[in-house]
Amino acid sequence: MAAALDDSVGAFIPGPRTPVAGAPAGPLRGLTFAVKDLYDVAGQVTTYGNPDWGRSHGVAPATAPVVTSLLQAGADLVGKTKTVELAYGLTGENVWHGTPINPAAPDRFPGGSSCGSAAAVSAGLVDFALGSDTGGSVRIPASYCGVFGIRPTWGAVNLAGACALGPSYDTCGWFAREAAVLARVGDVVLPLDADTGLGPLLKVEDAWINADPGTARALGGGLAALEGLLGRALTVEVAPEGLATLYEHFRCAQSEEAWATLGRWIEQAGPAFGPGVKERFAAAKAMDPGKAAAGRAFRRVFTGRMRALLGGGAVLAYPTSPAAAPKLGISLEAQNAVREATMGVTAIAGLAGLPEVTLPLGKVDGAPVGLSLVAAPGRDRQLLALAVQLARAVGLA
Amino acid sequence: MAAALDDSVGAFIPGPRTPVAGAPAGPLRGLTFAVKDLYDVAGQVTTYGNPDWGRSHGVAPATAPVVTSLLQAGADLVGKTKTVELAYGLTGENVWHGTPINPAAPDRFPGGSSCGSAAAVSAGLVDFALGSDTGGSVRIPASYCGVFGIRPTWGAVNLAGACALGPSYDTCGWFAREAAVLARVGDVVLPLDADTGLGPLLKVEDAWINADPGTARALGGGLAALEGLLGRALTVEVAPEGLATLYEHFRCAQSEEAWATLGRWIEQAGPAFGPGVKERFAAAKAMDPGKAAAGRAFRRVFTGRMRALLGGGAVLAYPTSPAAAPKLGISLEAQNAVREATMGVTAIAGLAGLPEVTLPLGKVDGAPVGLSLVAAPGRDRQLLALAVQLARAVGLA
Repeated sequence: MAAALDDSVGAFIPGPRTPVAGAPAGPLRGLTFAVKDLYDVAGQVTTYGNPDWGRSHGVAPATAPVVTSLLQAGADLVGKTKTVELAYGLTGENVWHGTPINPAAPDRFPGGSSCGSAAAVSAGLVDFALGSDTGGSVRIPASYCGVFGIRPTWGAVNLAGACALGPSYDTCGWFAREAAVLARVGDVVLPLDADTGLGPLLKVEDAWINADPGTARALGGGLAALEGLLGRALTVEVAPEGLATLYEHFRCAQSEEAWATLGRWIEQAGPAFGPGVKERFAAAKAMDPGKAAAGRAFRRVFTGRMRALLGGGAVLAYPTSPAAAPKLGISLEAQNAVREATMGVTAIAGLAGLPEVTLPLGKVDGAPVGLSLVAAPGRDRQLLALAVQLARAVGLA
Repeated sequence: MAAALDDSVGAFIPGPRTPVAGAPAGPLRGLTFAVKDLYDVAGQVTTYGNPDWGRSHGVAPATAPVVTSLLQAGADLVGKTKTVELAYGLTGENVWHGTPINPAAPDRFPGGSSCGSAAAVSAGLVDFALGSDTGGSVRIPASYCGVFGIRPTWGAVNLAGACALGPSYDTCGWFAREAAVLARVGDVVLPLDADTGLGPLLKVEDAWINADPGTARALGGGLAALEGLLGRALTVEVAPEGLATLYEHFRCAQSEEAWATLGRWIEQAGPAFGPGVKERFAAAKAMDPGKAAAGRAFRRVFTGRMRALLGGGAVLAYPTSPAAAPKLGISLEAQNAVREATMGVTAIAGLAGLPEVTLPLGKVDGAPVGLSLVAAPGRDRQLLALAVQLARAVGLA
């Protein structure tokens, strides 16, 4: 069990913490956890990363059912972690609460939007932590902070009592330092898999080419170990239209939902936003309906394509992020370039609602990069079991 | 095209209407529709059936993507329809906006919570209408008002920009007078089916026994016609623990979500509620966490059971509601008894996230009752095609 009160990396939201003890017995007894501050915990304010949100929404009268499930399974809740404001950003920056330190690379961003949960797990402050992932908000900070992370099948885990960003993309994901812990949490919150049997292994050429050469090299050993488990990888291309096109469609369709979901509060409360977040919501508000419709239409086509490719049990493998975390202090323009290269890859699972598990299998210039395993919807438990096997095969677990 | 401005049955929310013209071309061109007043339409207040909700939430800055999809497909939006307050009730009563008249049985309740949408379609005021269905809120008013209705696979249709009640149960459904129109709307808003091939037909004995003898008799012809399409029905039992147990687990688990979703607003705004609604939210607030946990656990078991039963393509058939709509003016106690008998049946698809289509195939004492077709998740389009075939077979379409 991890130490509960230390916060050397600034992972938790400022202010006093109110831990909640888990049930005295259960499959997660002995584990501590934290939750991104967009999950309600009864009697506490949910800030969603923004002080004005917290002020205007006040104290939560009930606990999100997914958090209740974890408590009833015996895990102890330590506190609530920082998030990018309204979960709308990938670097992990939060100008109001302070950006958490990336424990695995202190001169770099932690990644976001679930920055505090990734940092808390990476620093060993908790055994696991809940995040949420709409466009990469679990996968990217997991890759950047060198921990395991999962974005489950869309809809597989209950999001009642959690703040929404884009409901048809939002998922409840989580982080752990050990693959086995990642899987044990899944045993509590995930439905049973609908189909069984994973394989063949597909190496997604588009995403490997999109990655920095150093990242691809760093993950070569992980891929080889995966081939030892699933057989030699077949090479596939998933986006002949280009990953940039995937990102563009994702951005347009998801922006429409972000504004439909959060626009009312933004217009009425007129909240102060930090840099980047403000611009993204302004762009969401101004989104051209024709572009959003094209994004929705593309999403249907792409979802059909991925289900056909993966329906028999195939597993995709590719670098979670094209590069290690960007250095602190880079320009907003450089951040946007990273965002674009990154979200072309995260849009694969994001658009199609696929489960994705990232494993901390490489380092570039001393900073972590993750290898992702992706499967058809509903194969989350098998994917977690495969991650446990792979971690063991490379000597991680 | 239906007449747009008449509201002889009180289906629309009070006040001036702001129609929105659809695109000049598209697969739904020439059709008019209405939406339950829990879908946002830009520039309009969404009341969620409760004046205090409308006052405290104000004007919507964006239109729900599902409504935008229908407009872009060419359908003309006529207006917004009444809903039970916060969608939390099955009779269709709304003391603030007035309860819509059931056009098919004016001395009876229209059913809810999507009461206005069912009444508007039944009265011929629009060609189709969006509702939402958490625990029966499309299926029951469709059965009571003698129209076609669908509750799609959970998660299949985008709920961004729609008010939530129980996110892991909520679905966007719709009504039409013709099976073909019901299916055409599905072609616009539903993803492609994941698997194809329906059959065998399973007659759900639990639900037929639960129905009033008159209802079962009235739907016998519909079932026979269905056997003409799918072959002789096999008899199955889906709930050996009893439909009352299904309802009890549904109620406990869904109440937890209702309070986690709406409790904050209710506590802070202190809204006035009509009879029944107030008591249901009070019960949700007081829900025992152990009972909610048991409900969640049962849901997992039941979902696995139904997926195994239906995964090969089987279709369930049973009476949508155990009886025709209750008469206006019956006591709250009698309403609760109807609710319990009804929700044991609606919980089948509700708990397991299954698609359900109801067809107006019978009458009891002159009032409509519906026959339901239910399949595995992701078979919505085939189910709609089967409904078109069945409607044709009985001379309805």
